[in-house]
Formats: sequence, structure tokens, C-alpha cells
Amino acid sequence: MKTVNVGLIGFGTVGTGVVKTLLSKRRSLESRSGVSINLAKIADLNLRPRIGVRVPKKLLTRNVDSVIKNRNIDIVVELIGGIHPAKEIILKSARLGKHVVTANKALLAEHGREIFSLASKFKTFVGFEASVGGGIPVINVLKNSFVANDIEVIHGILNGTTNFILSKMSEEKCAFNEALRDAQKRGIAEKNPKLDISGADSCHKLCLLALLGFGLSVKPKDIYTEGIEKVSPIDIEYAKNWGYAVKSLAIAKKVGSKLDLRVHPALISLKKILASVKYEDNAIFIRGNMTGEALLYGKGAGELPTASAVVSDIVEIAKNVDDFKKSKNPFKLEFAGSVKKVRKMHDLTTRYYVRFSVIDKPGVLAGISGILAQNGISISTVSQKERKRGQPVPLVMLTHEANEGSMQKALDRIDKLSYVTEKSVEIRIEQ
Amino acid sequence: MKTVNVGLIGFGTVGTGVVKTLLSKRRSLESRSGVSINLAKIADLNLRPRIGVRVPKKLLTRNVDSVIKNRNIDIVVELIGGIHPAKEIILKSARLGKHVVTANKALLAEHGREIFSLASKFKTFVGFEASVGGGIPVINVLKNSFVANDIEVIHGILNGTTNFILSKMSEEKCAFNEALRDAQKRGIAEKNPKLDISGADSCHKLCLLALLGFGLSVKPKDIYTEGIEKVSPIDIEYAKNWGYAVKSLAIAKKVGSKLDLRVHPALISLKKILASVKYEDNAIFIRGNMTGEALLYGKGAGELPTASAVVSDIVEIAKNVDDFKKSKNPFKLEFAGSVKKVRKMHDLTTRYYVRFSVIDKPGVLAGISGILAQNGISISTVSQKERKRGQPVPLVMLTHEANEGSMQKALDRIDKLSYVTEKSVEIRIEQ
Repeated sequence: MKTVNVGLIGFGTVGTGVVKTLLSKRRSLESRSGVSINLAKIADLNLRPRIGVRVPKKLLTRNVDSVIKNRNIDIVVELIGGIHPAKEIILKSARLGKHVVTANKALLAEHGREIFSLASKFKTFVGFEASVGGGIPVINVLKNSFVANDIEVIHGILNGTTNFILSKMSEEKCAFNEALRDAQKRGIAEKNPKLDISGADSCHKLCLLALLGFGLSVKPKDIYTEGIEKVSPIDIEYAKNWGYAVKSLAIAKKVGSKLDLRVHPALISLKKILASVKYEDNAIFIRGNMTGEALLYGKGAGELPTASAVVSDIVEIAKNVDDFKKSKNPFKLEFAGSVKKVRKMHDLTTRYYVRFSVIDKPGVLAGISGILAQNGISISTVSQKERKRGQPVPLVMLTHEANEGSMQKALDRIDKLSYVTEKSVEIRIEQ
Repeated sequence: MKTVNVGLIGFGTVGTGVVKTLLSKRRSLESRSGVSINLAKIADLNLRPRIGVRVPKKLLTRNVDSVIKNRNIDIVVELIGGIHPAKEIILKSARLGKHVVTANKALLAEHGREIFSLASKFKTFVGFEASVGGGIPVINVLKNSFVANDIEVIHGILNGTTNFILSKMSEEKCAFNEALRDAQKRGIAEKNPKLDISGADSCHKLCLLALLGFGLSVKPKDIYTEGIEKVSPIDIEYAKNWGYAVKSLAIAKKVGSKLDLRVHPALISLKKILASVKYEDNAIFIRGNMTGEALLYGKGAGELPTASAVVSDIVEIAKNVDDFKKSKNPFKLEFAGSVKKVRKMHDLTTRYYVRFSVIDKPGVLAGISGILAQNGISISTVSQKERKRGQPVPLVMLTHEANEGSMQKALDRIDKLSYVTEKSVEIRIEQ
């Protein structure tokens, strides 16, 4: 039986899961793939033992180059994260003819084009199933299973931290900060949660889904990205009463020959299965012109779900390791789809939930709805609960379909009104 | 660019979808796969034009052998269904070194072992993504994405007809026959719906999932299979009040070294996402030891979803068509998993919903609960609504965990009691 050698760089949480799997499942993976996958080297700066796995000492090294330059190693698994030196490790490995597996969405979102084209040049393969949706096989499904489809829409709950916070705010009626603290206590949010909370992590993942689903190579800066900080418990309450959940969505949607690409909190109908995806779970809704509506749901992060994805890439490469070199089809992800470029955010047409903080006095509703009307925005539902006269009170509404540019203009004007006490909060509604 | 020739046998609903796709998407599939996929021949007894697609006349033939024996054809797509002559077509094609794509679950469930081993011998590939879950990529996911997992549980809603009927009974509170007639009117149920209603179709699909998920080759007769005819609107109502939906489930569950394999109506908690899978939609819940809980949801049937799966198989084969011949890893689906054989149904331990039809008179509850107790079955919830004294009335209960064999013994005895007016209905509860 053929043996394929794997070198792992980065012995952290996911790396430990990969090591556990390759060491304990060698027989079973042989039986399923017909190839023997040998973990040949593990590089990390910290070589102390990891809980739950005993690693032969000779596998361990602090020297990354001894892995990359090792002639026996066929596959380099990069799990250190971050841009540098992960990028250099991957490029160097590809140049040396090694296949690469990585979970590094930030790197692939920023530098994927360079990495993929180098891999193509050197006839190596880049596996990155673990970079989006953890154990959810969305990369494989978009690349292979849905290959015959024109993808029309992808809606993803791609970030477990923000979904946990919004779910906890909704289920336990608590404030943002309390939900965040709980997420941090459980290890679901980082000490510095900015990458998740700001939507940047979802944005990185959406770059990869745009490439796989629509053939379009985009960078994070091409994607309109909004965090969840502005969502308050009162928004979640109003949404729920009107039949919606508030979720942080990553959206890729074909509109003619353009691709609508954005990450932001959104109201989605409670009748949609996506609304039932709670706490740290992730899910990706995909509508293809052939498959119709499909949903992939599962664990978006964590040691073992992510390691499962990494190992599936390793096995795919191991099965085909000889063929890549001979193949006339180099590694390629971009394709000539029906989408040519990203649509500008101000061209978006959608329904909105809007919450204004106003002093409760005569003329307020007339003033605000007047400005909305002047911008072509019509209101479908409005709610203002009785409070003390002259005190700030939330005025909450749902609009009919409106243009994003007009909405921003209207909100700018409204926020300058004397009786508006806080910046207005708009949350887009996804149908 | 390399050209791969495809011969289609069976120009029915799904065949038409495949033809539409291969003819209209040739460019896009080339761009994504690096291979040109040429539809070379279409064989069917009926050569009248199909709606929505114009086929060059020279592609059409009534002669199946002219497709199978055509030297130029690399891939034979069998979409005629049924056992004969589909089986002979596939075997003959494999013997001639042709790769095969099929959606024929009944055939693969009964004769898969023979077909797969012949394919392995002749170094050809059998693609059957379309045979389970229509457009839902469960075959690919189990075979590739979850390859590193010990699968623990698969719960599938694998039959759109039965799910439609049960959903309609639940949502519109109508009787079985009315729901069935509506399904037939919409083309969701066949004129003769027996294969679906009886659970046989789900049983066929479960054979394939048992193979892919657990490495175990089983036949339909190895799977305990129960239809949905016994479910009445009153069961659905009681279940709903107690927080459950009634679904026809295909279940594969590892219990020690045995595999619990069964198809039957089941109560599942309304809190589970699977309970929100309604009408003709399908879904497959999979728990792997690494991925944790995952769900794949989508359209389980229909021209385009199923054609999408067929074409994904064609593309996978086309990309690798040269490599299969050289490969040292022949086509192989069985693997040495941790499951050795199917568990006997009477060894099952589960909770039950049971409905007895009894004459309302003193001593009835004592009599029935006495027999249950003698068989080691303890009741967790019981409901008997007031009716006219001396009239038949439903006595409905949920049990704690109990043994299937004991439950059947108890029901046999209970059904013989003088005050029991109809065969008791038991529905297992899935946790």
C-alpha cells in the first residue's frame, strides 16, 4: 500500500485534533482510502505534551523548514493561523511541490489568488475545507456536489461567536455585554473578540464562498461588513414579535450579472430553518438553480469538527497524490460563471427594520416618516409604545423594499433632528 | 482539452434534466472541471421530443447496446430504474470498462455488492449520488467529507412522499387518505404509492447509507421496515401536544459493535431541526464522533435536483477518467468500521408512544398498565379524554425506555383483551 507523508505545522487546538486522528485512525483511513497516511513531522515552538495524545518524540521539531524541505513529506498542513509566516510557509511548500492543507481563512481571503495560482503553477493542491464552517463540508459541496448549478444565493451563519451572542440575547433576554462575557467564559469568544464581533471573520469566509459558489475572486475590502454591536435586546424583542430572528448573516446573492456580497446582522423569518440555528452552531443555506433550496448545518469550530475537515482534505490529496503531477487540469478555483463583479452596496434594494430613539412629543412621527417618504421609503409596520411624555422612547418600524443609498441619506437627515436622541439603528431584512 | 463521452440510458424525468444540463452547461462545466463532457448518445424506447430541450436527432437511439458497446463512450448513465434490465445494463457496461452513474436505489440496495465488486474488478467507478436524497449531497459527504469520523447515528427523512403526507396531516389536520390524494394530485406520490408509503423506498436508501456511513453491506431484508399507514391524525395531535412531530425516519445507529437499522414512523422532539423539515423536503441528520451533530437538508427528488446529483457524479468521473485505470485503489465502498453486524429488532431499547382503543369502563387502565408492568414497561405520561361511558375511546401514553421484544409481547396480550376494540398503535420515540 502506498504511503503518503504528512508534515504538520502548528500544534494548537486543531493541530492536536489532527494528530489524534492521524495517529489513532491510521488503520481505518487506510481501509477507506487505500492509502497509508503517515504523520511524519510536527513543528511548533511549544513542544510540551498535549492532553489526550501521546506523540513519539522523534516526530516533534521546532524547525519549520525541516518539515517544508523534507523530501519525504508530500502534504504540508498549515495550522498556525495569521498572515505571516503562514503565507511564506504555504508558498514555499507549494514551490517545493508539496500539497497544502490549511484552515487559514484570513490568509486565503487576503492572499488566496497568489497562493492558488502558485499551487496551480507547481501542480500542487490546496485543501481548505476547514477554513469555512468547521466540520460543515461546504467547500466540498460547492466545488463538487453543486458543480452543475448556477448558485443563486448563499446565506451563511458562519461565525459561532456572534451566533452564540445573538442567540443568548434572544433566548435569555440578556444584554450584549453579558452574552459576550458568557461566550468568553465558555471559550466560544476570544479575549479580544473583535475579529468575530466586527464581522471580519465572516467576511473572510464569504470571500471563499464567493470564489467557490460564483467563481469570483474577491478581497475582504470588496465586501460590505457590519458587526453585531449595534443590535440591542429591544431589537431582538421587536423582531421576534414580528416573526423574525436576528442573525449575523454572510450573504452572497446573484443579481443579474452582479454579486451582492455583504456581512451584517439581518432579520430572517422564524419560519426559515436558518432561524433555528442557535448558539455556536453554524449553517449555510444555498439556493442553486437545480438543487433548489439546500442547507448544511453543523459545528462551525472546535478541535474535532475542524480536524475532521482537515483530515478529509488530507485523505482527498493522499488518494490522488500521484495523479496531480500528471494531471492536465491544474488546481483551479475561479471559473467563468454568470457573475462578473460585486454590486455596490448603495444599489441594494431590501426591506429594513429601523429603530429611532426619539423624544415623545407631537410631530415626531410626521417628521421622521416625512423624511423617509421624501427618500422613497414607505413604512409597512410601525410601533411606538407609550412612555412618559417628553422622555426618549424607541420608535420602531419595518419598511417596504427600499434602496440602501436612499435609506442612508434618510437616516443621516433623521439623526440630525433635534428630537432624535441617539444614532438610529437599521437592520436589513433577508427574505 | 480532454473530451469525455457520456451515454444516457433512460430519457425520463431525471434523464431530461441531465440532458438539459449537459447540453446547456457544457461551457460552464468545462470551465469548472477542465474536461469537456460530451453527451454522445441517448437511448430510450420513447423518442418523442421532451419539453424544454431540443436534442439533435443523431443522439437518439432505441438500441441500448449501441450505447453500452460504443467504444467512444466513457460513462454510461443508467436512469431507467427498476431491477431488470437496469442491472444487466450496468454489469455489461462495467465489464466493458465503462464507468457508471445511476440513481437506482432499489437496484443498488438489492444487488449493490455484485455491482460494486464487478466495478472494482474492471477498474470502473459507480456514481450514485442521485440515489439517496436527490439534490442533497449525502453520498459525497459520507464518503469524503466525513471520512475521518466514526459515524454514530444517521437519521434520515429520505422519502418526500411520506414526509408530505405526514406534514399535511399535521399542518392541515387532515386524514391520511386526503393527504395521499393531494400528494398524488401534485405528482409527489405515484398512482400506486406502495413503495413510498410502506417504507421500502427509505429502506433501499438506508442500505446505501449503512454502507457509506458504517462500511456495512446489508440488504433490504436486513432492515426492519414499517410504513406510515398506521399513523392517524389523533396520533399527530397527541404528539404535538407533548412536544413531538411524527416523521417517517430511516435510522442507522451504532450500539456497541452492532448497527441498529430501521425505517418506521417516529416521534421526534419539535426542538430538533429535523422536526422542521416539512412536506416533500428531505434531510439527513448525521452525528460523527468528530463533526458532532450535522444536518444536510434539501430537495429529495424532482427532475433538476436529482439531475444535479447525476451531473456531479459525471463531472467527478470525467475529471479522473484516466486515473481510475492506472489507480492501485480500485473502487471500494465497504470498509473495516467498528460495526460488525445488524442488531436484532427485538433487542432495541427505546421510548414509545402507544395508543390503545378501549371501551371506557372501570378497570381498563389497570388492566393495560398491569400487562405493561409485567413486561417491564413503565408509563411516563398518560392521557384519556372523557367520552361517553361504554364507548370506544383512545387511551394514549408515552413510556419510559423499554425493550422492543417486551413491548411486542405486551401489545399482543393487550390486543386480545375484551375491552380493546382495535389493534393498538405503537410509535417509537427517537431521542
